[in-house]
Amino acid sequence: MKQVSEAVPFIAYGGDYNPEQWSEEVWIDDAQKMQKAGVNLVSVAIFSWAVLEKEEGVFNFAWLDKVLDILHEHGVGVCLATATASTPAWLSANYPDVAAVDQNGQPYNFGSRQHYSPNSPTYKKAVKKLVRKLAERYCGHPALKMWHINNEYGCHVSECYSRYSTAAFREWLENRYQSMDELNERWGTNFWSQRYNDWEEIELPVRLATFYNPGQMLDYKRFMNHAIFQLYKIEKEILREVTPDVPVFTNFMYQFKPLDYFEWAEELDVVTWDAYPDPREGIPYSSALHHDLMRSLKQGQPFLLMEQAASHVNWRDINLTKEPGIMRLWSYSAIGHGADGIMFFQWRQAKAGAEKFHSAMIPHSNSEESRVYQEVKQLGQELKKLNSLVGARTTAKVAIVFDWENWWAVELEGKPHNKLAYMEQIKQYYKVFYDQNLAVDFVRAQDDLSGYELVAAPMLYMIKPGDAENLEQFTANGGTLVVSFFSGIADENDRIHLGGYPAPLRRLLGLRVEEFVPYAEEESKTIVYNGQKAEAFTWTDIIMPEGAEVAAYYEDGWYMGKPAITRHTYGKGKAVYIGTQPESVLLERLLGELASGKHLKAPLHAPQHVEILRRDSDDYKHLIIVNHNDHEIELDLEQGVSYTDLLSGELLESSLCIKAVDVKILRF
Amino acid sequence: MKQVSEAVPFIAYGGDYNPEQWSEEVWIDDAQKMQKAGVNLVSVAIFSWAVLEKEEGVFNFAWLDKVLDILHEHGVGVCLATATASTPAWLSANYPDVAAVDQNGQPYNFGSRQHYSPNSPTYKKAVKKLVRKLAERYCGHPALKMWHINNEYGCHVSECYSRYSTAAFREWLENRYQSMDELNERWGTNFWSQRYNDWEEIELPVRLATFYNPGQMLDYKRFMNHAIFQLYKIEKEILREVTPDVPVFTNFMYQFKPLDYFEWAEELDVVTWDAYPDPREGIPYSSALHHDLMRSLKQGQPFLLMEQAASHVNWRDINLTKEPGIMRLWSYSAIGHGADGIMFFQWRQAKAGAEKFHSAMIPHSNSEESRVYQEVKQLGQELKKLNSLVGARTTAKVAIVFDWENWWAVELEGKPHNKLAYMEQIKQYYKVFYDQNLAVDFVRAQDDLSGYELVAAPMLYMIKPGDAENLEQFTANGGTLVVSFFSGIADENDRIHLGGYPAPLRRLLGLRVEEFVPYAEEESKTIVYNGQKAEAFTWTDIIMPEGAEVAAYYEDGWYMGKPAITRHTYGKGKAVYIGTQPESVLLERLLGELASGKHLKAPLHAPQHVEILRRDSDDYKHLIIVNHNDHEIELDLEQGVSYTDLLSGELLESSLCIKAVDVKILRF
Amino acid sequence: MKQVSEAVPFIAYGGDYNPEQWSEEVWIDDAQKMQKAGVNLVSVAIFSWAVLEKEEGVFNFAWLDKVLDILHEHGVGVCLATATASTPAWLSANYPDVAAVDQNGQPYNFGSRQHYSPNSPTYKKAVKKLVRKLAERYCGHPALKMWHINNEYGCHVSECYSRYSTAAFREWLENRYQSMDELNERWGTNFWSQRYNDWEEIELPVRLATFYNPGQMLDYKRFMNHAIFQLYKIEKEILREVTPDVPVFTNFMYQFKPLDYFEWAEELDVVTWDAYPDPREGIPYSSALHHDLMRSLKQGQPFLLMEQAASHVNWRDINLTKEPGIMRLWSYSAIGHGADGIMFFQWRQAKAGAEKFHSAMIPHSNSEESRVYQEVKQLGQELKKLNSLVGARTTAKVAIVFDWENWWAVELEGKPHNKLAYMEQIKQYYKVFYDQNLAVDFVRAQDDLSGYELVAAPMLYMIKPGDAENLEQFTANGGTLVVSFFSGIADENDRIHLGGYPAPLRRLLGLRVEEFVPYAEEESKTIVYNGQKAEAFTWTDIIMPEGAEVAAYYEDGWYMGKPAITRHTYGKGKAVYIGTQPESVLLERLLGELASGKHLKAPLHAPQHVEILRRDSDDYKHLIIVNHNDHEIELDLEQGVSYTDLLSGELLESSLCIKAVDVKILRF
Repeated sequence: MKQVSEAVPFIAYGGDYNPEQWSEEVWIDDAQKMQKAGVNLVSVAIFSWAVLEKEEGVFNFAWLDKVLDILHEHGVGVCLATATASTPAWLSANYPDVAAVDQNGQPYNFGSRQHYSPNSPTYKKAVKKLVRKLAERYCGHPALKMWHINNEYGCHVSECYSRYSTAAFREWLENRYQSMDELNERWGTNFWSQRYNDWEEIELPVRLATFYNPGQMLDYKRFMNHAIFQLYKIEKEILREVTPDVPVFTNFMYQFKPLDYFEWAEELDVVTWDAYPDPREGIPYSSALHHDLMRSLKQGQPFLLMEQAASHVNWRDINLTKEPGIMRLWSYSAIGHGADGIMFFQWRQAKAGAEKFHSAMIPHSNSEESRVYQEVKQLGQELKKLNSLVGARTTAKVAIVFDWENWWAVELEGKPHNKLAYMEQIKQYYKVFYDQNLAVDFVRAQDDLSGYELVAAPMLYMIKPGDAENLEQFTANGGTLVVSFFSGIADENDRIHLGGYPAPLRRLLGLRVEEFVPYAEEESKTIVYNGQKAEAFTWTDIIMPEGAEVAAYYEDGWYMGKPAITRHTYGKGKAVYIGTQPESVLLERLLGELASGKHLKAPLHAPQHVEILRRDSDDYKHLIIVNHNDHEIELDLEQGVSYTDLLSGELLESSLCIKAVDVKILRF
Repeated sequence: MKQVSEAVPFIAYGGDYNPEQWSEEVWIDDAQKMQKAGVNLVSVAIFSWAVLEKEEGVFNFAWLDKVLDILHEHGVGVCLATATASTPAWLSANYPDVAAVDQNGQPYNFGSRQHYSPNSPTYKKAVKKLVRKLAERYCGHPALKMWHINNEYGCHVSECYSRYSTAAFREWLENRYQSMDELNERWGTNFWSQRYNDWEEIELPVRLATFYNPGQMLDYKRFMNHAIFQLYKIEKEILREVTPDVPVFTNFMYQFKPLDYFEWAEELDVVTWDAYPDPREGIPYSSALHHDLMRSLKQGQPFLLMEQAASHVNWRDINLTKEPGIMRLWSYSAIGHGADGIMFFQWRQAKAGAEKFHSAMIPHSNSEESRVYQEVKQLGQELKKLNSLVGARTTAKVAIVFDWENWWAVELEGKPHNKLAYMEQIKQYYKVFYDQNLAVDFVRAQDDLSGYELVAAPMLYMIKPGDAENLEQFTANGGTLVVSFFSGIADENDRIHLGGYPAPLRRLLGLRVEEFVPYAEEESKTIVYNGQKAEAFTWTDIIMPEGAEVAAYYEDGWYMGKPAITRHTYGKGKAVYIGTQPESVLLERLLGELASGKHLKAPLHAPQHVEILRRDSDDYKHLIIVNHNDHEIELDLEQGVSYTDLLSGELLESSLCIKAVDVKILRF
Repeated sequence: MKQVSEAVPFIAYGGDYNPEQWSEEVWIDDAQKMQKAGVNLVSVAIFSWAVLEKEEGVFNFAWLDKVLDILHEHGVGVCLATATASTPAWLSANYPDVAAVDQNGQPYNFGSRQHYSPNSPTYKKAVKKLVRKLAERYCGHPALKMWHINNEYGCHVSECYSRYSTAAFREWLENRYQSMDELNERWGTNFWSQRYNDWEEIELPVRLATFYNPGQMLDYKRFMNHAIFQLYKIEKEILREVTPDVPVFTNFMYQFKPLDYFEWAEELDVVTWDAYPDPREGIPYSSALHHDLMRSLKQGQPFLLMEQAASHVNWRDINLTKEPGIMRLWSYSAIGHGADGIMFFQWRQAKAGAEKFHSAMIPHSNSEESRVYQEVKQLGQELKKLNSLVGARTTAKVAIVFDWENWWAVELEGKPHNKLAYMEQIKQYYKVFYDQNLAVDFVRAQDDLSGYELVAAPMLYMIKPGDAENLEQFTANGGTLVVSFFSGIADENDRIHLGGYPAPLRRLLGLRVEEFVPYAEEESKTIVYNGQKAEAFTWTDIIMPEGAEVAAYYEDGWYMGKPAITRHTYGKGKAVYIGTQPESVLLERLLGELASGKHLKAPLHAPQHVEILRRDSDDYKHLIIVNHNDHEIELDLEQGVSYTDLLSGELLESSLCIKAVDVKILRF
């Protein structure tokens, strides 16, 4: 198979393209405007099943042949979609099992998109037929660069309660646990008289009288991730067989809980994702976090930004426009974090349908003078100058532990504090490093941590076999580990690690947690760290040091004087435990000190709201500097180094000005 | 057929009357108290099906005969209801298809009211039998003045998802579009793989995985309006056949989106409606708006206020009483806006059932001394003096474009700003004219506008074939047209009018809108109009003038300096475009200037919160002056005109005092 | 049958015990720790059906035999549960009728707990078999002290919409009303065409198009209470037959509306209940209210606190811990209000399942040093000194009328003010007496009131036959009666008592209420009582005195000058009517004056937030003094009386100090 950087040996630029919504004359107009805008890659046929296979077994590729020919003639490559994300009407009408079933036991109706059940036998059969046909038809087409499998798997339907899903769940459980006794033990079914004698007695966790069995619900989430992942693998297998050289991928989403993307990424040739930050957020550090996460999914391999909005979306309550320059700025931020391509949903704004008010590279007016197209064109021309970035890598010395199974488990109901969101805890830690321009990778607790100096594990509730040992080894070898409250509590079946919290981490952290004390909603406490006071929110762990020293203590509450933050020397390293949610200024100070202790610092010193991002290839080093401020800034460059400003071509030394909402790409 | 003013040649006064809830002795008491209270018309048998047809085919009219006789003997006429609004228990029990089906696919149970499906064959058959029986029984009864068909059509069930509704929807679509290709084109089904091969593949837009197809949803709304309208027509046809002379109507509701009352009104002999303003609203200008809308539905023909509360309702969370004098005051406001009758729900407060805490003309105490009955009696006696108002008309020179299909379309999901409510935009414009005592009609964009000087079209999102031409003609002929943001965007199938917004109105307005910029929730901008600053909310259209001149511009935002409001001379008239939602003081100024430019003014100059309403017949002119203030006011009358105060009988000249919460009816 | 005080002749102490979740070695550890903690009673087998009857008809008692033996050997008695609260998986899988059906017509799935339908024939049959087996097995076991029937009946499923429930409802109605005519009259079915010809036409009040028939809904609530009560009686009958000497009970819940506990209590040998006040509430006076209610259910017989949390629960959004000392303090408060036992959910904190984060007497760490176990142990040792309290009674001279049927009726929809909660009205009155340390009983309006001096009946909306006469008799005999607004309105079928509100109480109260005037949400009025102004909220009754004198009047509103509170001399007593919701300071003053007028006072004078509770047996008097303050307090004792401090053994005279969050139990 070709590497992605062979298949697309430039910064990819383009978007989703839906020619079936337009007449042939428009296709020509499209291709010409693409050329002008520097577009070199588009995703075609994502929602084309109904026009590719108009009736069961009757395929119509003529239009798509022509589209691909036109694109190729205009120098535009194609990510060809497998068109399986939305089934045609005839399939739903003829085979009711295609429909996913909702929580009320009712099938979803045809008429929207992606309403199929991941466990429908008919859906899988029809997918196989279509994908093979497509692959065989286009395996030799010169426009074909990559396969775009399905689309945003699980987006609307990540749970299904059909009888097919029930049967598949039972089968998956039997596979996983082999015996009923094992399942009963793992799920703790002696609680509430829930013991099972037979796989056939197990129902899906839906429409229950009250709280579910957490082991069952956790496994249902695993099962649905698995079921959807099978769909991807079915397609991939056929594509690999027919077109062994063509890279494949599907597109991931923002903060998407149902799918374990770490597991998925192993089967993708390139990670791609769809970024739609709400302009109301201001500087989209949540997007930056996800860029870093996406880059981490394949151990640093550059990803593609597969979809973003040229201006506004249409699916929020209020859909703000991106103000002038913002789309360009955020695109460069993506590149800085590791993107090798900038793609949009979509090329041409739709005339009809549910997304007609979603912005596109070409607006409804079809005017080349429109602000949005002008900005699109400018960016496309600029990106042509950045090909030395293709494949260039980010080196991070800081890692944050992030784990989908932990996400599922820690947000199950019945917890001490049920308004805690895992992602919010992750974001709080991420933001500290982001603000300090320290590159961050995301890892799982079982991953190789030897490349990192500082690892933070916020709210790592679930500790699976081997996790504690891996963290111990990292620390013993000299690493600095930070763990926060409500970590180390449960095993992979959400059963308590008995013997005093956080049992598997007690040795490493040098402490025991006797009680959890969640706060009422408006409550806060005062803690003292190195003589300075700070507020603490959300939660107090009652910590009993067993070797750890006290770094901060409570100044109020019935646990006044007890430790809030501890430090424990472990082997050559140290393990810090933060038993509450400190206000951000303290977290910044604390993590900043730990980073300094490891001599970690930003590539350049910069004012607030300026990203300094480094990407290096074998041949070049690059700095991508993104000024999110609405005023000009000045930066000192490293002395004695000569930088090329890739967009202007100028050579730079010693210092640098960047205008408001502007960017510099320096190569050195 | 008789005119309504022949059938009821006086100001109608009375209410819903449900004698089946009471014993025969109470009927006599009722009739006597009605007489004392000046009641001359009641609606009988609205919920009587179960007592009229106790078992299938077994009819029992004896009690109703007696009721009608007693009423007639006491000088009370009857709007006889067809009793079809609520089916009897035996019908639901024996024919399950009668029940409408909810969004979860479950039938509604018997036990409340109006739970039938508009597409139930059994319901239609049973209705035909009952209505014919009733008509034949009472065609010659002297008490019968009009037929009250059904009740508040669509009130609780305006959507049904039964298989009968699915079948009827498919049939309606086939009728409308003739071919699958046409439907696919109109609904834009090449989007999201939604193409249909066969009518049988089409489902109702319910239980979808995500956003619906807007074309489909819009047609579903049209279809349900159609289906319910058929029920009315079925009844009307039988009644016309058996009693060709007796006027028929049904009662409309407040701000009722599911039914296109403009279409319905053509089949009613008189428009009637049920007004239940929440006393928390203060002065009920929303009711005034609806009075004007109801009057407009039949081109100015007076309407009947068919239901109002004597004091409080029972179906809000908190049900406030109408304070002393308020019921009378609001009744006169209704008359001022064009009502020829004031009716209540209901005559006697129920002892049992879901509405027993809804006020009535006779309260639970049955006491003639009760405040409520005293006020009812006073009003009844007063209304006898106002017969010269019967049939008198309002002449409006201002019209507001209001269109149910636009309402349906503009509030479909997936819009740039999904918290925009069409009715709120309409109300904002209406209130300006209301506060200035300028009479307002409501019209559709395709209606004859030649009688108007000033037409406002707020948020006229949908432009149907002929609409733009009609508005152009109105303006070209000298009219002043005001159009507000997000107008002219979509066609009758909610497909974008391509080529630059608002494509069909660009010539008339002399501009192009390049982008929509919805505001975040707390956001506002400053605009400058004739040197004065004002706040703007909700939305900015980025306007590119193409002939229009700038009337106001933005002082902030990234579009600073760009036009917010424009003026365009078109033929003999002018077209004003308001590309945002200005604060009310600016809208008042702007519309006030436009009205002044057309020499439009109030019938009299009045202080705030005083309605001056004019109704003229061939013989008389009337002013209805309603003082909503809690203090006395003084007014100057037109010099040289002699007025008769109809309630006191006094003659008036030059000036006039009106007490707090009081009214004057002047004839001249 | 043994009295409870014979079966458990000491202050009971212990909790729910679920040995089936643990291995046999843990059982020994449990028993030893129980002994150390002073545990003398545990509830076993509450959720053990699936391990007792692993397959249909295959019973396995060996483990339970052993558990009971171990407990007995360690001096721990057992409330043996009948294990019927949660059905085993095989029962649900084999007999679908076991499942209750939800409002959407869908059966609840197996996988949680207590999902059975109270009207399932299979469930009843299986229960009978299991209970008989259990009773026969353990009838002679020396550990068996009492039977714990089922668990928290109705907790999750108190409504069921299965076809079995429909059939049972029809049968229950036929039983109750005998004829269709009677039912039609009681439900007022001539309203909205709701008349029934046949029992088979009646559906459950669910999935209705709009408002339900209140008579039907009220009867549905009665029916579900009845259906669930039958389940209890089925079990009790078998247990009485096999073990006639062993007391039986089930455990009641907090503020639990679906079950009429007054009716149930007649069939319990001892009332027990589960108290889980939210620590956010502060001093849990709502628990105190329920202690008094529970004591009142069996006319003053002491109750058992069957469940409380050692620290936190796990089923709130945020689950606060009980701070040090609080569990002990609240336990003594329960004893003061009439508890003869303090039990916990649960003994040992679960390792898995939905409640693993619910605190227990033994935490996850299993550490004897843990704060929670230390407090548990201390309390257990202390309680051993209090056996003279067993069976001791509270004498109350104040009673509050509380009635489940009134609760159901007054909170049905369609009321003048639909945000009124009956329990909030009750609490407001209760709190006044609680703050003044006046002991309160709860009674129904039809109960014997001769022992009381002062009876308050807040919002007694429903007046059933005999109620008014009973209240009249109480007052005529010298009692002081307080009635608040919206009382005396409806009969037992929620039909209005016609003839002027509150018809059945007009003679007693000496007034007529002409209108209800609910307030908008932020509204309040000023009333004047004895020259002092106070705020009034929520509601104004327009009162027309008919013999009553005015005690307070309105100073604003359109009813300015009209009475807000009246006093009426009736026989030897007086009846006070409070036609609004006065601010608490006025209610305190008013009720305080009425209590003083009856010479009612607290057992001792005490500072704020100190409970003074009196319990007397034939041999001893006791004062339980609970200091909720976080500071020490001092109290004067009655002169000349010699008190024994039961916890310290000291003798006390004249005065007393109690530390912060501490308690004294004095015997004299």
